[in-house]
Amino acid sequence: MGMIGGGPGAFIGAVHRIAANMDGLIELVCGSFSSDPEKSKKAGNELYLSPDRVYGSFREMIRSEHGLPESKRMDFVSIVTPNHLHFEPAKLALENGFHVVLDKPMTFDLNEAIQLKQTVEKSGKYFCLTHTYTGYPMVKQAKQMLKDGLFGNIRKVYVEYPQGWLSTFVEAEGSKQAGWRTDPTKSGKAGAMGDIGTHAFNLAEYVSGLQVTQLCSNLNTYVKGRKLDDDGDVLLKFDNGASGVLIASQIAAGDENNIKIRVYGEKGGLEWQQKDANSILVKWLDKPAEIFRTGSGYVSSYASHNSRTPAGHPEGYLEAFANLYRNFSLCVMAQMNNEKPKPEWLDFPGVDDGVRGMAFIENVVKSSTAKEKWIDFKV
Amino acid sequence: MGMIGGGPGAFIGAVHRIAANMDGLIELVCGSFSSDPEKSKKAGNELYLSPDRVYGSFREMIRSEHGLPESKRMDFVSIVTPNHLHFEPAKLALENGFHVVLDKPMTFDLNEAIQLKQTVEKSGKYFCLTHTYTGYPMVKQAKQMLKDGLFGNIRKVYVEYPQGWLSTFVEAEGSKQAGWRTDPTKSGKAGAMGDIGTHAFNLAEYVSGLQVTQLCSNLNTYVKGRKLDDDGDVLLKFDNGASGVLIASQIAAGDENNIKIRVYGEKGGLEWQQKDANSILVKWLDKPAEIFRTGSGYVSSYASHNSRTPAGHPEGYLEAFANLYRNFSLCVMAQMNNEKPKPEWLDFPGVDDGVRGMAFIENVVKSSTAKEKWIDFKV
Amino acid sequence: MGMIGGGPGAFIGAVHRIAANMDGLIELVCGSFSSDPEKSKKAGNELYLSPDRVYGSFREMIRSEHGLPESKRMDFVSIVTPNHLHFEPAKLALENGFHVVLDKPMTFDLNEAIQLKQTVEKSGKYFCLTHTYTGYPMVKQAKQMLKDGLFGNIRKVYVEYPQGWLSTFVEAEGSKQAGWRTDPTKSGKAGAMGDIGTHAFNLAEYVSGLQVTQLCSNLNTYVKGRKLDDDGDVLLKFDNGASGVLIASQIAAGDENNIKIRVYGEKGGLEWQQKDANSILVKWLDKPAEIFRTGSGYVSSYASHNSRTPAGHPEGYLEAFANLYRNFSLCVMAQMNNEKPKPEWLDFPGVDDGVRGMAFIENVVKSSTAKEKWIDFKV
Amino acid sequence: MGMIGGGPGAFIGAVHRIAANMDGLIELVCGSFSSDPEKSKKAGNELYLSPDRVYGSFREMIRSEHGLPESKRMDFVSIVTPNHLHFEPAKLALENGFHVVLDKPMTFDLNEAIQLKQTVEKSGKYFCLTHTYTGYPMVKQAKQMLKDGLFGNIRKVYVEYPQGWLSTFVEAEGSKQAGWRTDPTKSGKAGAMGDIGTHAFNLAEYVSGLQVTQLCSNLNTYVKGRKLDDDGDVLLKFDNGASGVLIASQIAAGDENNIKIRVYGEKGGLEWQQKDANSILVKWLDKPAEIFRTGSGYVSSYASHNSRTPAGHPEGYLEAFANLYRNFSLCVMAQMNNEKPKPEWLDFPGVDDGVRGMAFIENVVKSSTAKEKWIDFKV
Repeated sequence: MGMIGGGPGAFIGAVHRIAANMDGLIELVCGSFSSDPEKSKKAGNELYLSPDRVYGSFREMIRSEHGLPESKRMDFVSIVTPNHLHFEPAKLALENGFHVVLDKPMTFDLNEAIQLKQTVEKSGKYFCLTHTYTGYPMVKQAKQMLKDGLFGNIRKVYVEYPQGWLSTFVEAEGSKQAGWRTDPTKSGKAGAMGDIGTHAFNLAEYVSGLQVTQLCSNLNTYVKGRKLDDDGDVLLKFDNGASGVLIASQIAAGDENNIKIRVYGEKGGLEWQQKDANSILVKWLDKPAEIFRTGSGYVSSYASHNSRTPAGHPEGYLEAFANLYRNFSLCVMAQMNNEKPKPEWLDFPGVDDGVRGMAFIENVVKSSTAKEKWIDFKV
Repeated sequence: MGMIGGGPGAFIGAVHRIAANMDGLIELVCGSFSSDPEKSKKAGNELYLSPDRVYGSFREMIRSEHGLPESKRMDFVSIVTPNHLHFEPAKLALENGFHVVLDKPMTFDLNEAIQLKQTVEKSGKYFCLTHTYTGYPMVKQAKQMLKDGLFGNIRKVYVEYPQGWLSTFVEAEGSKQAGWRTDPTKSGKAGAMGDIGTHAFNLAEYVSGLQVTQLCSNLNTYVKGRKLDDDGDVLLKFDNGASGVLIASQIAAGDENNIKIRVYGEKGGLEWQQKDANSILVKWLDKPAEIFRTGSGYVSSYASHNSRTPAGHPEGYLEAFANLYRNFSLCVMAQMNNEKPKPEWLDFPGVDDGVRGMAFIENVVKSSTAKEKWIDFKV
Repeated sequence: MGMIGGGPGAFIGAVHRIAANMDGLIELVCGSFSSDPEKSKKAGNELYLSPDRVYGSFREMIRSEHGLPESKRMDFVSIVTPNHLHFEPAKLALENGFHVVLDKPMTFDLNEAIQLKQTVEKSGKYFCLTHTYTGYPMVKQAKQMLKDGLFGNIRKVYVEYPQGWLSTFVEAEGSKQAGWRTDPTKSGKAGAMGDIGTHAFNLAEYVSGLQVTQLCSNLNTYVKGRKLDDDGDVLLKFDNGASGVLIASQIAAGDENNIKIRVYGEKGGLEWQQKDANSILVKWLDKPAEIFRTGSGYVSSYASHNSRTPAGHPEGYLEAFANLYRNFSLCVMAQMNNEKPKPEWLDFPGVDDGVRGMAFIENVVKSSTAKEKWIDFKV
Repeated sequence: MGMIGGGPGAFIGAVHRIAANMDGLIELVCGSFSSDPEKSKKAGNELYLSPDRVYGSFREMIRSEHGLPESKRMDFVSIVTPNHLHFEPAKLALENGFHVVLDKPMTFDLNEAIQLKQTVEKSGKYFCLTHTYTGYPMVKQAKQMLKDGLFGNIRKVYVEYPQGWLSTFVEAEGSKQAGWRTDPTKSGKAGAMGDIGTHAFNLAEYVSGLQVTQLCSNLNTYVKGRKLDDDGDVLLKFDNGASGVLIASQIAAGDENNIKIRVYGEKGGLEWQQKDANSILVKWLDKPAEIFRTGSGYVSSYASHNSRTPAGHPEGYLEAFANLYRNFSLCVMAQMNNEKPKPEWLDFPGVDDGVRGMAFIENVVKSSTAKEKWIDFKV
């Protein structure tokens, strides 16, 4: 794999590398870690890369790698730059025959997203968008149980993603993470809704198997001087008649990162939260609630394929992230070997998730200033 | 005390009696337990009442008790009938010089609520509306900490009240509890929003010390044949600029009764839920979260006045309910003794809470079918 | 009911009165609240008792009440004095025809316990020892599930009772509660083991349905100057071959009162703790764990008889305590009415529990200084 | 790194590889995965190793690698065989100049352990024993807070390790994991006490900073036909006067793997459990309990060095395991670069832990059949 962005110091770049390393299937062979060639070189050095495969720009990297013999060049590229620098390298990589892993949200705006979708489809290459939370085995178990109809028709979906790290004006105090996320020229139309709202939205649609058809939002900017929303609440309607609420806040002071989803059907409901990531609480109308656990013998093939240890050995965020890389690379290897990928391998977020995520941003921002209550969810 | 409604078999009547008994301050001396005199008599008998003080109607009871010498007659009346039978007995009791405890929501509609407020004010009598949840010591502690400004300005209020017991068409299967609650001629304009939404609303305003100024709701009726909402989600705006979400559902299949509130300010936030009623989780921006506990030495006078045992002896729903009765009766006794009640005694929900609760029902129902997003909260 | 001891200010006296009041079945009619007649009078006055039924000593009270006509005199006596003042009033009350509720541990020593057992048996009166924790509905549910053999033969019993309130030398600082509990002339041979170890022991035998046959203990006194054990760990062997551990500490600094039990059989196990008193965690070998909840439709008649509200309305320590009083008084009333008590009513701790508790104290103290590992549990 | 044992299918071998991969510091370059050369070859192939560095025996591997130029040969060896195959390869590797990572318990018996200690000391090489649980950041935080004296002198240490997977006679049904662990010719003198009791013992001594001086144990074999203990309870005395209890069971039916420790000092206590691995519950005598969290800004350098993500991104068992590998390999690299390792790097379990662990096994087995209560902890 080659990496674009994510020089040492960048939070998410390091996470991607750990996730890629974990299962011994992927080797980092080249990178373009910074727009500053010196910084990129330094980063490559710290990562034990061969200097001739540390590039000064993503264009140079894609061109050069493309020029290498197939057996030597990178198989795929992982793009971990800020949002405004997603589209171009992803498109170029795909057009040059490289599979792509891309950090979320997919692009700067919906227009880019739609174009990228076309590029992916035309390329015949695998594309993975790192909506990490769908990589958790118990999230997959929840999806499966709902899909199997154990709870009857779904009526309610509550999803929430409270963080507190933007409770103060940290972007003015030099926080690099906060800097680009709150800058509309880099992040796009939305702040909190783009950064974490899209995760919550993706989780809701993934787990429920439903699609949002209408929404009504209230976005807020609580920190003085901030240029994008740092908080928002959204009412949701789904295509089967279910309704729901999405909450995403980065000013929930004292909260860490506890994305949580609850889904209720006619006969029961279930609840998953990252803080207790290896459990699902399954609730029933007339019998005791049950606790489903990662690594147990009774879980679905999707859940068991995505865990590495027996029950009681907690797997966390990095393992969930690694599941995306593992499934993606199993598919890439299958393609290289002309084998058919297993259904479990294909279960990673892709370009359609990305398009819906970008549409979510457009619609949620539009609704926020609208006078009418319900906005149709347009893609 | 005398009781109107609440014959044996009625859930909430029994709860009121336990709450009144608990601290040995209140004695049930008379009652009109049913509109059927035979049933009322039977109930009185099972409650060890003197037969001559078991009445066939609330009118008879109030008239007869009023006719007794002051030292013998009941000091106050507790009204535990369905909503459409709140206003008349409450008004009559107040006009005949009796203090009143009334179950929530206060009346059948807002109009009655406003009239009742006038009656209470004119009467000079104490009036308690049993919004149980504000009786919990840790709810009082939360209110106090927010009032003391420990978290800075409040930005977010999330309140939720998920129940699952109306997930099926139980009112068609003879459930008495479900019957009147889902009947618009007895319950009023709202179902879930009236029954539990008003609790959530009251808790939000009580704990935060803020008032809702605008709301935007989505009410649903998921069970076929049901006549009132059984579920709803509401976006909220508060008078200080804070925003929030209120969720109330009676079709959250498998959920019991876990009313929960989270409030966030600039510097931290707190979280209370009935399931873990003796704790508040207090979260801070830059230091470890703390767990405040009922009965601890460090809690406020409002919290400690409302608990009966040292930390670690869990107090629950019935104790919270009993706190309303205890504070109300301490005030009543103080008035009888021409003494000034302590501030802690006066801290029970009253007629103003009731008016706002009924206004909440009107506004939330109105918003649900409105085309515009925000409805001003009108009283 | 009449009360011996428990003047205002005494923690456990107030708890007994709340427990007795709660269900409206019991009225406090007389008392001897203190060995100081003036204090007793004052206490009676604060409790709204008729002055002529507030007595200066338990002897006077029992004699005087015995002299009243049957319809007027107290039906039973509740004794809430320190341990060294249990035996005499209990014996005298029984011998004068009064049923007895007695606080734990039953007596000052095993010898008194055995005598009291004979007195109870001779008297034909009901006797209740307030081992509160067996009054919790979910403790009864746990007992029932084990008795029903759902888990196969029992192999392990872990019980623990950690408190922290004696972490410092509080008895030297005027704590009345600590004073007599750490004084061997009032408490008996054991400190922590008598005060809370006996609760843990009783819970273990009650829930498991097993009896301890051998034990091996390590008792400690960590606070300098203290005269009795403030901490101890005990290995246990049970009559069916199961083994276990009992932990009781009053120097577990920062801990409140979280008595907890875990029992494991061949096919699964269960776990109950006071902190989450309305749940049992039920664990199985090959399927998801389940959460059984107070007030649910699926619990046993013993559990449902001992709760007052639907699931989700937490019941706590005072309700558990009130269950002892309620069951005891239902039995007393049945005897008065020549009716047969229901099996659920008879399920309260009695004199046999008390004898075993006192034997536990003797044996655990003996083992602590013994050189041999195992001590036979002798009664 | 080279690996001895751990062919595909072996649970712990895969875990070691994931742990070694995670941070991109270590590359698997050779292995002797099975005593059967064919199986070893197959395993090496599946792990993408060069066939000439897949060996048929550990002796061949060590000899061959030793013969390679220093820049090409493995830097260290990781040994993941059953207990009876620990000593020989570890000794041989050390004597041939290789650093060693070794799975626990260290050896087959105490005698081997003492010899291995001498070999390590003579070799000047790094030696890491994989007591995983001390790799958790919050375990390190707990140790630090106790070491800093925040709780005063330590009085109690409770440690427990309940598992349920050996509740039935699985070794007779072909479970490879169960097979050697319950076979005294492979596992050694102890079953549960060797497999998980040593983990609990190590955790207790590591976190508390104390050493056990005396113990009293009760070991049991509950499953018919089993040859070693599958359960045990141990009373402990520590060198500072503290006491404690160690529980280890593999027949706690329904339990997974929730190793847990509680330590109490004069002023407060703390609690950590693997199930909630990213939190420590810190309890105080007179103020609210606190929750310390992995990745927070306020944790010690030892905790922060051992985590990879900000607070709220749960890290689990594999990350804890990887921390051992990371610290070990940072030390190895420092030695190769003639640099001084940081104190945080040196904080991994070593040969002294191993010796004490083997002594624990000897003593706990001896005590179990002893008649006297206390056995001195002899090494």
